[in-house]
Amino acid sequence: MNNMNRAWRLEKRPVGTIQPTDLSLVEEPIPELEDGQILKRNIYLSVDPTNRIWMSDREQYMPPVEIGDVMRGGTLGVVESSRHAGFEPGDLVNGLGGWQTHHVASGDMVNKLPGDTGIPLPAFMSALGATGVTAYFGLLDIGQPKAGETVVVSAAAGAVGSIVGQIAKIKGCRVIGISGSDEKCAHVVDDFGFDGAINYKTENVAERLRVLCPDGIDVDFENVGGPIFDAIMEQINLNARIVLCGMISTYNESDGAVRGPDNFDQVLMKRARIEGLIVSDYLNRWMEAMTELGTWVMEGKIKYDVDIVDGIENTLTALDRIFAGANIGKQLVRLSPEP
Amino acid sequence: MNNMNRAWRLEKRPVGTIQPTDLSLVEEPIPELEDGQILKRNIYLSVDPTNRIWMSDREQYMPPVEIGDVMRGGTLGVVESSRHAGFEPGDLVNGLGGWQTHHVASGDMVNKLPGDTGIPLPAFMSALGATGVTAYFGLLDIGQPKAGETVVVSAAAGAVGSIVGQIAKIKGCRVIGISGSDEKCAHVVDDFGFDGAINYKTENVAERLRVLCPDGIDVDFENVGGPIFDAIMEQINLNARIVLCGMISTYNESDGAVRGPDNFDQVLMKRARIEGLIVSDYLNRWMEAMTELGTWVMEGKIKYDVDIVDGIENTLTALDRIFAGANIGKQLVRLSPEP
Repeated sequence: MNNMNRAWRLEKRPVGTIQPTDLSLVEEPIPELEDGQILKRNIYLSVDPTNRIWMSDREQYMPPVEIGDVMRGGTLGVVESSRHAGFEPGDLVNGLGGWQTHHVASGDMVNKLPGDTGIPLPAFMSALGATGVTAYFGLLDIGQPKAGETVVVSAAAGAVGSIVGQIAKIKGCRVIGISGSDEKCAHVVDDFGFDGAINYKTENVAERLRVLCPDGIDVDFENVGGPIFDAIMEQINLNARIVLCGMISTYNESDGAVRGPDNFDQVLMKRARIEGLIVSDYLNRWMEAMTELGTWVMEGKIKYDVDIVDGIENTLTALDRIFAGANIGKQLVRLSPEP
Repeated sequence: MNNMNRAWRLEKRPVGTIQPTDLSLVEEPIPELEDGQILKRNIYLSVDPTNRIWMSDREQYMPPVEIGDVMRGGTLGVVESSRHAGFEPGDLVNGLGGWQTHHVASGDMVNKLPGDTGIPLPAFMSALGATGVTAYFGLLDIGQPKAGETVVVSAAAGAVGSIVGQIAKIKGCRVIGISGSDEKCAHVVDDFGFDGAINYKTENVAERLRVLCPDGIDVDFENVGGPIFDAIMEQINLNARIVLCGMISTYNESDGAVRGPDNFDQVLMKRARIEGLIVSDYLNRWMEAMTELGTWVMEGKIKYDVDIVDGIENTLTALDRIFAGANIGKQLVRLSPEP
């Protein structure tokens, strides 16, 4: 067994776009296990827009990653050795695990995956992972869509947006997606069943929304912020709900300001509700989402994409793909082969 | 009986600050009553920040006042003649009535005041009027303050803010007000029982909030918007609630943009909820608020100020006082003597 770990450590806080020198890939010995710990070989690493927030020291929802620490990330791996009664070698587990090939973790901090479901492992990092659960609670708990209402989803082809749209369709809503290429727009309509899609890079978003949402917008699942959010806010209905899940368009702003929409008075005029969402608030209800999402996936009612980059050395490239909009679906890095 | 009405009609939509030529004061015959109508002599006229919104044609929560129409406003008056079975001369009524001395109204569109309460009439235009009911539902329904939480109120000495703070104190909260003069700050602490107050014209709001809200801010009752709102948003707690009641600092902006707070990402990071409030949504629960507010007023638990300007010709002056922050408490215009 390999006794070395390869890990990305944060060297300094990025200013604006992440630079290759902001992190370094180091090779270091795997520590000995203590009681209660497991050694996990990571198979899949999730890279997400929120990684950029964790690298900064702005006010945020978890402690920032400290300089010198292994970069934080969601992982799925296989137990190689265990000094925890709940795990044995070969068990598949997921949880926060870091940008690293191997992870010595407290067994209490990881979750064992259900065996023999027939569901491919990457599903547990996408539709049945944190992004799927984010979509589930964000849309249903905060967005509260009713049949016949119009739901708009930005970053519609993304890991969260694509699931949001499909759940909204299951609930009987009209669903319009906003995305960054004709290919992605066709994908969300043809494969995910959205009623329409807007390419924000080539189309006038406000004009197209007026055409595609003739009855106005009841729910906005907001992943992007900036001018796209402004265009949506112009067309919200009375008592609209805005699920604020992310504002990826703003994360690389170096001045630290993340301005609200240009037409913020619409919140007052339309008695709208804007509410922020972080999926970790739903840890105690995780199984509720997994159960229903798992059923929908097995019934073929929810489809998902994964976009896999191979090799830990390509982790920053994988993250860049998200900010460039190059990925289609959940962006993962494969750190080692599936068992 | 006088058979002429004096009325302010909207001549053109103000650009920026209201100019005297934007409205004209005309004298015109009072029309004959038709079946179902009453003739009301207005006694008190309410002038409010939202009047400025109604004069514009921006997207808003009611139709804008049309050019040439009598300006819309809340009134309290006495019935002079009636062709409606529910009213007789001498009845006191309130409701939307316009900036005019006399009003021929459908009896179905006004409310008869309770008789013999011993409560002074101006109370029905302040603590027990639309501003009091706004404070009541905004704080309790949307803000949902819990005992021990910290509530911040901007425009704290105003008709809405002063009632919000007193209700929050009744509910066991720590209450900090923000206001525009030392006199008003002393007033909200000494007379309305706030725990502290900040003069935004002479003090650094962010610094003072840090001192006066050592446990952070759980509820913001937002009447002002702009930089004061930014300073509050910096210091909100997890799951904070922001009651968006008004943004008076922005109403005279001539470019039409009403930007959200500079640190809008706090909504996400703190999983906060921002919700807009227009009191007309609570018409069917009006008596619930009136009953409890009336009890508190009679018990002396809620105090209120009215700031009265005499004469319909001084209506624009009265409205200017609000935008200049010259009023203390509910700004009214007395159009004729109480019976």
